[in-house]
Amino acid sequence: MNIHRFQENFCNIAQYGIQKNGGVTRLAFTKEDMDARNYLIEAMRRARLQVHIDPIGNIRGLRPGRNSNLSPVMIGSHLDSVPNGGHYDGVVGVLAALEVIESLNDLELETQRTIEIVNFSAEESSRFGMATIGSKAITGKIQLSDIESLNDKNGESLITVLNKTGQNITELPNSLISSTSLHAYLELHIEQGPVLETTGINLGIVTDIAAPTRYKLSITGRSDHSGNTPMEMRYDALTGAAEIVLAVERLTKNGGKHTVGTVGELVVNSGAMNVIPGQVNLSIDIRDTSMANKNRVIEQLQEIIENVSSTRQLEISTTTICNDQPVKLSDNIAKIIAKHATKQKLSYNMMPSGAGHDAMHFAEIVPTGLIFIPSIGGLSHNPSEKSNMSDIVNGIEVLTQTVIELTS
Amino acid sequence: MNIHRFQENFCNIAQYGIQKNGGVTRLAFTKEDMDARNYLIEAMRRARLQVHIDPIGNIRGLRPGRNSNLSPVMIGSHLDSVPNGGHYDGVVGVLAALEVIESLNDLELETQRTIEIVNFSAEESSRFGMATIGSKAITGKIQLSDIESLNDKNGESLITVLNKTGQNITELPNSLISSTSLHAYLELHIEQGPVLETTGINLGIVTDIAAPTRYKLSITGRSDHSGNTPMEMRYDALTGAAEIVLAVERLTKNGGKHTVGTVGELVVNSGAMNVIPGQVNLSIDIRDTSMANKNRVIEQLQEIIENVSSTRQLEISTTTICNDQPVKLSDNIAKIIAKHATKQKLSYNMMPSGAGHDAMHFAEIVPTGLIFIPSIGGLSHNPSEKSNMSDIVNGIEVLTQTVIELTS
Repeated sequence: MNIHRFQENFCNIAQYGIQKNGGVTRLAFTKEDMDARNYLIEAMRRARLQVHIDPIGNIRGLRPGRNSNLSPVMIGSHLDSVPNGGHYDGVVGVLAALEVIESLNDLELETQRTIEIVNFSAEESSRFGMATIGSKAITGKIQLSDIESLNDKNGESLITVLNKTGQNITELPNSLISSTSLHAYLELHIEQGPVLETTGINLGIVTDIAAPTRYKLSITGRSDHSGNTPMEMRYDALTGAAEIVLAVERLTKNGGKHTVGTVGELVVNSGAMNVIPGQVNLSIDIRDTSMANKNRVIEQLQEIIENVSSTRQLEISTTTICNDQPVKLSDNIAKIIAKHATKQKLSYNMMPSGAGHDAMHFAEIVPTGLIFIPSIGGLSHNPSEKSNMSDIVNGIEVLTQTVIELTS
Repeated sequence: MNIHRFQENFCNIAQYGIQKNGGVTRLAFTKEDMDARNYLIEAMRRARLQVHIDPIGNIRGLRPGRNSNLSPVMIGSHLDSVPNGGHYDGVVGVLAALEVIESLNDLELETQRTIEIVNFSAEESSRFGMATIGSKAITGKIQLSDIESLNDKNGESLITVLNKTGQNITELPNSLISSTSLHAYLELHIEQGPVLETTGINLGIVTDIAAPTRYKLSITGRSDHSGNTPMEMRYDALTGAAEIVLAVERLTKNGGKHTVGTVGELVVNSGAMNVIPGQVNLSIDIRDTSMANKNRVIEQLQEIIENVSSTRQLEISTTTICNDQPVKLSDNIAKIIAKHATKQKLSYNMMPSGAGHDAMHFAEIVPTGLIFIPSIGGLSHNPSEKSNMSDIVNGIEVLTQTVIELTS
């Protein structure tokens, strides 16, 4: 690979976004994301890829193989970010895929199979409340009707956004990935956790992907004057919400080995210092590599929510955003990745991923591999998110060798 | 009293303001407030009051008594509102005072003492960020320099506003109320709480006005990925905040009889479903009629905040917004009010006020009485704020008899 070229692409993408305290905001399909996408399209064209945008807005580039009867190998990730996130999440994977292509071009190496690289739309749920929309859509995990119901905080629908960029979502059913249309899916991603760095290991080879179950709760009590309403006459939506926030923490702490739970959003509507909160919205995100463990936590949580509702006389409505199955990745591809890591004298760890990735939607359809590189301090979704360039290079080298083996 | 006359005045004042969803916005000294003030001035003149505007813009009307050596009795409240507030808060008290005068006129009843009725300027903090400005100014609770520092959100200063309406604030020091210049202060106000309605009692006779202690807290943890960060490696600002929200509730519930505590504002900065909250701001409002009880709760709360900070390794900074002393109203006037309530076969409740009122600034200078009438649903600062006309009539009747007794 060419470190210089990768770094140049990386620095260029990094400038597209709202910059704050070293972090970046590049929400899906905003001006910032479109700038990054356009840069990528140009770079893909320079790498002589056949570029097209599919109906859900995924940017796809083909490097045709010698044998057009063989199904291609896909390598993908995403350019969009969370609000004030880091520069590495997703971007490293997209530019690694591009660098695989450039490296093969440098070597003038033709492959039997076509290689397709992809930037998936809206991997982060930050704008439309649903994660990995692009990969879900082309693997048939969500339908047109699901997509039509997605809106951002300003009420703009994903459909409107796609129309603006010229996509025709009704063509989606003709663009679905199947087990015959794709040979394998590969992704390189930062770990976004502390395990590799803490144990001093070069690469993670992902065996399972934990799956989120997500809820949006609307808690309605009554807005009252903070001075003239005795404690026992209150219907405070925020104290009810606080109980639920702490229950999510307590239940997941006492859950399985890989159970985690987070309330990441909480909004007090019409909040004012001297008004008892009458209405609170919050989100709950619970993840586990074991569906059984996750279901146990969810049951306990539902009991607590009902209890908060009846004890405090609050109306709590729960909307399930997703309830995904944990995913097992390909043992076979993991072995190929491990072989190339060993060849390059790199240590590796067979490990689960607590975060979801576009890869998980491919795993049930085609053999899928996911490579982690260490995250400094385990940080992600944070301005301080960082990976060492030497670790990125290691990841790209192993990814390139794996792609060559799968496409030769 | 004359219900018709009161209702006509009430309906006329109600039309001055920005109307929305049944609520009204009449911020101090805006066009809407000036319209209401001008209507009141005309109505006061019709009631043969000697009207003048004092240096802070309070509208004052004198009904001279027979004995000019005796200090007058003052009755007041306010016409300004919060943004999209109700039609009753303050207005009922001002028009009740006017109706007292009209009733005495109807009866051709001369009093020994002069009666002065007042519409206080800027009782609500909504425009200039400070509450009860008019009553604070003429009781010497704030100085010229305090007043000079007040600006609205558009940067217009209160001084500019007063100059426009022809007031000369430098004359304020010559207009201060003293224990010799005033005999008593009385106010009728809606309860703005649920106690009277819930208990089915006609009138509240206020014994104490609780005073708020208010804090703003900034809680800083670390934003991390909600999937790949094990529970034991998190620095979640929201779970820390939730502990504090519940502590405010628990400590005030276990505090004194009249202790109340509210977290009315809570903002998760850069909140997203899949990000562990790194920064949360919240407000705390604790009120009590007993400074000792309030201080005990505050001490306990500070201990808990320190504990949350050290246990969860969160940085918590606390800013004190105010730490006010509760106020005791006149026992003697309360007894007179109670006597007249009983004479009219009305039930009453000796009760504290959790909300501040113009009355509280008079209580340290002259004997002060405050009468509450029931608020439907306990609602206030809300378009649904309402009191029954029968309750308003009861309040005015008792107020009138109390005024007659104090001025005869």
